[in-house]
Amino acid sequence: MNRGPEGRRRPVTIHDVAREAGVSRGTVSRVLNGGHYVSPAAQTAVNNAIRRTGYVVNRHARSLITGRSDSVAFLLTEPQERFFEDPNFNVLLRSCTQELASQDIPLLLMIAGNEDERRRNLRYIQAGHVDGVLLVSSHSGDPVAGELDAAGIPVVACGKPIGQQARISYVAADDRDGARQMVRFLYESGRRRIATVSGPPDTPGGVERLAGYRETLAECGLPVDEALIAAGDYSRASGGRAAEQLLERAPDIDAVFVASDLMADGVLDALARAGRSVPGDVAVGGFDDSPAALAAAPRLTTIRQPFDRISKEMVRMLMARIGGEDPAAVILPTELVRRESA
Amino acid sequence: MNRGPEGRRRPVTIHDVAREAGVSRGTVSRVLNGGHYVSPAAQTAVNNAIRRTGYVVNRHARSLITGRSDSVAFLLTEPQERFFEDPNFNVLLRSCTQELASQDIPLLLMIAGNEDERRRNLRYIQAGHVDGVLLVSSHSGDPVAGELDAAGIPVVACGKPIGQQARISYVAADDRDGARQMVRFLYESGRRRIATVSGPPDTPGGVERLAGYRETLAECGLPVDEALIAAGDYSRASGGRAAEQLLERAPDIDAVFVASDLMADGVLDALARAGRSVPGDVAVGGFDDSPAALAAAPRLTTIRQPFDRISKEMVRMLMARIGGEDPAAVILPTELVRRESA
Repeated sequence: MNRGPEGRRRPVTIHDVAREAGVSRGTVSRVLNGGHYVSPAAQTAVNNAIRRTGYVVNRHARSLITGRSDSVAFLLTEPQERFFEDPNFNVLLRSCTQELASQDIPLLLMIAGNEDERRRNLRYIQAGHVDGVLLVSSHSGDPVAGELDAAGIPVVACGKPIGQQARISYVAADDRDGARQMVRFLYESGRRRIATVSGPPDTPGGVERLAGYRETLAECGLPVDEALIAAGDYSRASGGRAAEQLLERAPDIDAVFVASDLMADGVLDALARAGRSVPGDVAVGGFDDSPAALAAAPRLTTIRQPFDRISKEMVRMLMARIGGEDPAAVILPTELVRRESA
Repeated sequence: MNRGPEGRRRPVTIHDVAREAGVSRGTVSRVLNGGHYVSPAAQTAVNNAIRRTGYVVNRHARSLITGRSDSVAFLLTEPQERFFEDPNFNVLLRSCTQELASQDIPLLLMIAGNEDERRRNLRYIQAGHVDGVLLVSSHSGDPVAGELDAAGIPVVACGKPIGQQARISYVAADDRDGARQMVRFLYESGRRRIATVSGPPDTPGGVERLAGYRETLAECGLPVDEALIAAGDYSRASGGRAAEQLLERAPDIDAVFVASDLMADGVLDALARAGRSVPGDVAVGGFDDSPAALAAAPRLTTIRQPFDRISKEMVRMLMARIGGEDPAAVILPTELVRRESA
């Protein structure tokens, strides 16, 4: 896009391309129509001018010249219901959209919640309609990252793609350290029967946050009691069910570190139903600092994932991958946010 | 896609295309690579065989042959926040995805919540990366439908595109009749001070549901009192604010017909804050029968929009438009669903 005298964007025309290339409009047109009767030097000049001006021709002509679609997919490999339930996805989608907007690149949201949807979306991506993929999936067993990589599609994952991290670029918050901060905070607040609701064991957040919990209990000299560990699937309902299990197995718990804010909201409901006050009887610590943390009652003390920075880094790394750079990983620090629940 | 002996789909290969066309594999390959040294008859045979077998080549080759991307966009011209807040969009997206899945067509979600996003998304669509657009927008002033149509992109709108309905295909629920059913039901339940919270005046739902309200009051012999009419913007918060206005202007209201379930949920909150019981003091009727109707307390008596049928018809009409058919409109009936709020 060019900017006119008032700084307003106006569409780039074939005239702009001709001026930039130092050739006639007819020459540009001939290049766009297949390059017949055009000298190699003029062809190169026009192609360069098209790149510099950002001229948008029709898909066939443009993609034949640049080989790019100038768009990026946000591929979510979760069922659509999870997408609407968990505010993390909303936050991540918005900040990725904004980050790409600064480069004038549209974001396409694709939801692959089952095998058929995955196959259809991969087919579309492999046909070249997007230049790269921001992959958002909680499950590390997910084969999509490897399939995209094998097909030569630049991809950056949100969260460590366990087992594939050498080949796939990713951006992750420091899950283990975040869990450590929360558990140590609960311990230093005087809690001694600290339970946890972990995420699914096939997710990096499920694995790393649980590892941080275990490590920190041991460092604090507390026994790691398996009765104090229950797993959820990141949904609110699963948090409630896990809290019920914990209360049954260990009625004397005085704190719960929950591996996501949405599950922590479910834990709060279950504790209220069981007549336990928060944080009086039981302190509750979440993870994410998503909108769910502020919507909860009491508002959640939690670990902040830096979603804005995560999105910014995902977009930066994807652009680098599209430009031919090798894979890399970025791990971003988390921080404790104190509110009312602990 | 072909089906093998067990009825399972397997990818169509270049061999299948060659067999179908009655030519050698090398001829197919030459056609895919630009058609040099291929007779016009063989070229035609190969192109037809590609269409018949559904062979997926790379974007350049395939799109040059069929001119299609075999994909459809779900373009939402609302801010992303509304998308996550209003469960209607979730329902509509899911049923459109399912309907397209039966034709093995992927759905791309594009959100155009501001002018820049609209421009970027239109550019992507106009570059031919999708074959058509399912346009979901509550605002009839939205210029997107006309812009897509002018660019020759097949489009089907959800809801009547006011002022453009002759050129743009659309599917809508019978908004006016739905409103009439609800207001008549409230009247027949003995309510005589029936207020309404309407949708925005630039939306078909805002206009038609209010018109149905006015008509039915008149038919029932009740005066149409402007103090009983307040407008919201379809958000929950706007429903609450509208209810506060109504209670201030007309403390004696005994019923409210609300033009969406999400706004009705906000109305319930406001009535509870004001100490009015529902349905004892004030009956509340919603519109949509979205998940918000079931999540509300008390559960909402509402007007069911047939979202599954709306989606099915939108997809059917879009495929017809892509196939060259002229625009058309489909209006689907609504029905009253009785629950606890009225």
